[in-house]
Amino acid sequence: MPTEGPAAGHSDGHDLRHHGDAEVRDDGSTLVDLAVNVRADTPPRWLRERVAASLNGLAAYPDGRAARAAVAARHGLPVERVLLTSGAAEAFVLLARALKVRRPVVVHPQFTEPEAALRDAGHSVDRVVLRAEDGFRLDPAAVPETADLVVVGNPTNPTSVLHPALTIRRLARPGRTLVVDEAFMDAVPGEREALAGITDVPGLVVLRSLTKTWGLAGLRIGYVLAAPETVADLERAQPLWPVSTPALAAAEACMGAEALAEAAHAARRVAADRAHLVAGLEEFGVDGVRVVGPAEGPFVLMRLPGADAVRRQLRTLGFAVRRGDTFPGLDEEWLRLAVRDRATVNRFLQALDQALALTRG
Amino acid sequence: MPTEGPAAGHSDGHDLRHHGDAEVRDDGSTLVDLAVNVRADTPPRWLRERVAASLNGLAAYPDGRAARAAVAARHGLPVERVLLTSGAAEAFVLLARALKVRRPVVVHPQFTEPEAALRDAGHSVDRVVLRAEDGFRLDPAAVPETADLVVVGNPTNPTSVLHPALTIRRLARPGRTLVVDEAFMDAVPGEREALAGITDVPGLVVLRSLTKTWGLAGLRIGYVLAAPETVADLERAQPLWPVSTPALAAAEACMGAEALAEAAHAARRVAADRAHLVAGLEEFGVDGVRVVGPAEGPFVLMRLPGADAVRRQLRTLGFAVRRGDTFPGLDEEWLRLAVRDRATVNRFLQALDQALALTRG
Repeated sequence: MPTEGPAAGHSDGHDLRHHGDAEVRDDGSTLVDLAVNVRADTPPRWLRERVAASLNGLAAYPDGRAARAAVAARHGLPVERVLLTSGAAEAFVLLARALKVRRPVVVHPQFTEPEAALRDAGHSVDRVVLRAEDGFRLDPAAVPETADLVVVGNPTNPTSVLHPALTIRRLARPGRTLVVDEAFMDAVPGEREALAGITDVPGLVVLRSLTKTWGLAGLRIGYVLAAPETVADLERAQPLWPVSTPALAAAEACMGAEALAEAAHAARRVAADRAHLVAGLEEFGVDGVRVVGPAEGPFVLMRLPGADAVRRQLRTLGFAVRRGDTFPGLDEEWLRLAVRDRATVNRFLQALDQALALTRG
Repeated sequence: MPTEGPAAGHSDGHDLRHHGDAEVRDDGSTLVDLAVNVRADTPPRWLRERVAASLNGLAAYPDGRAARAAVAARHGLPVERVLLTSGAAEAFVLLARALKVRRPVVVHPQFTEPEAALRDAGHSVDRVVLRAEDGFRLDPAAVPETADLVVVGNPTNPTSVLHPALTIRRLARPGRTLVVDEAFMDAVPGEREALAGITDVPGLVVLRSLTKTWGLAGLRIGYVLAAPETVADLERAQPLWPVSTPALAAAEACMGAEALAEAAHAARRVAADRAHLVAGLEEFGVDGVRVVGPAEGPFVLMRLPGADAVRRQLRTLGFAVRRGDTFPGLDEEWLRLAVRDRATVNRFLQALDQALALTRG
């Protein structure tokens, strides 16, 4: 049995510090990766070349101004509303440490880093746990009125649910910071339901990532869109020169018109590949497989009795999938699958068939 | 007159957030740079190639284990005593935010980021200001007994003074964190007076940078050596995946035996070039130029009546030097000069001659 990394950051039995990368590390190089939500065959060659060209300037300290201006222009915002960060992960730490927060609430199941960062900063965190019976849909009334920081993902990792922008807007209050993690929004065709670029929602903080669509997980680049005062507060908590020169080069490159067109194309491709995956999974309905729908992100969440045994069996068959039980609100009956191309999905579905037979046998 | 960046982070009239890179940015590309303390003609080709090779793995999240092990091995320490950071700048923020500190003291003049990070984290910071009359030498008795965090640079930026390791050891106390910024120690032949690798000093935290010797300012990589408990505390305050894959590749590469030999060679070269620069500057003694000595870092600090006018004149003659007045304990009579090769130094000395004549005329 492969090791799955140290057990750190546990909270209520959920390992908030477990991430998909641990499921493909070490012996993982031999596994087909459906565990990590990074688009396959990325970064594209042109982007790798842009990043490589930036290496000629490594002796100089990073100058983030051009990248910041490019991000601002892409979202039609002034630069004062943009903060570049060392991945979205840094943004969560900045939010947890730099803002005056007394009652943070995280809407689960979702990416666990926001809660882990808040706890590490000394906050006690309340959870609003969306229910499978409700299709993990967001009910704004479930969030306590006293919450002065609310974190929600859209589309949500790992449920792949895309909340309506209007529903999320209803969470905004004077005196409340509303953090919307849109790390996967660029994988949604038309980025419908996006709040990035919106300036009329009080306390709105939108997080964006370049990691998933562009395959830049190793580079650490993301950004925050927020009111100028919030950006200034977060910036003061950042180290000097927080984002490296190669990451800045990538950010600027990904904001160009051609890059945006490529991302839009990739989003439509993901939607088609996801439909194929979901249709294939639904054929296992007789085995108890249930897919959360409609899935709108580049991954799908499925429920299956004995999922953990199936996951281990899949590893022996060469496929890594993401365990669900480390997400608050889920348990060992859940698995998350990254959307891959049709050929890979077909091979995966065959393996799943085998794994189900072997675990039931 | 070129702009010199926004006035931010002022404290007691000293702009703690002013750094040499602002003096060569923008119109600076046409200036010969003696303002930024990064070794010229870096990174070397072999290192740039190692970093470039890492770009093939950008789609995967960074895995810092190999780099951490390499750093530990280089200093003869277990990995639990090593923390990789996104530049030394991140280390200062982590120290300021993650440790329980009530009375931090910073020994000045020195790099201003530690104090800026402490203030941004809400601390009030006491200063011990070393005096020019004492050659900016450290008197351990000058540090208040009640200080529970003491930050000192060795060799110190901007004074270029190398404090004896024994003197620094005398600052250690039970219950006190003693932070020694050794960002420039690898430019000192033999790294004599280094505390990196020492484990018998209670509360010792040593910071190291790869930026200066290796020309990796744009990459954001540095590391902390400390007791395992301190490393764990700092690590908990870090974002997930704090150091990028290219930066990790560079760190690992710079710990190899050949790299260490190259750094040692560069340190001896810096010492020879610095001797040439200092000898040249001393010829301006009649003009009031005084060099702080003995200089042991890859830069020298000089005093000169009317230094600010001379600095501006030097810019019109094509040379950027670092203003001293942003360092607590110094004023507008001070300039810092990065050590460059003999040919560059000779041209600079000619320009200084001209600048002195023009400002006196």
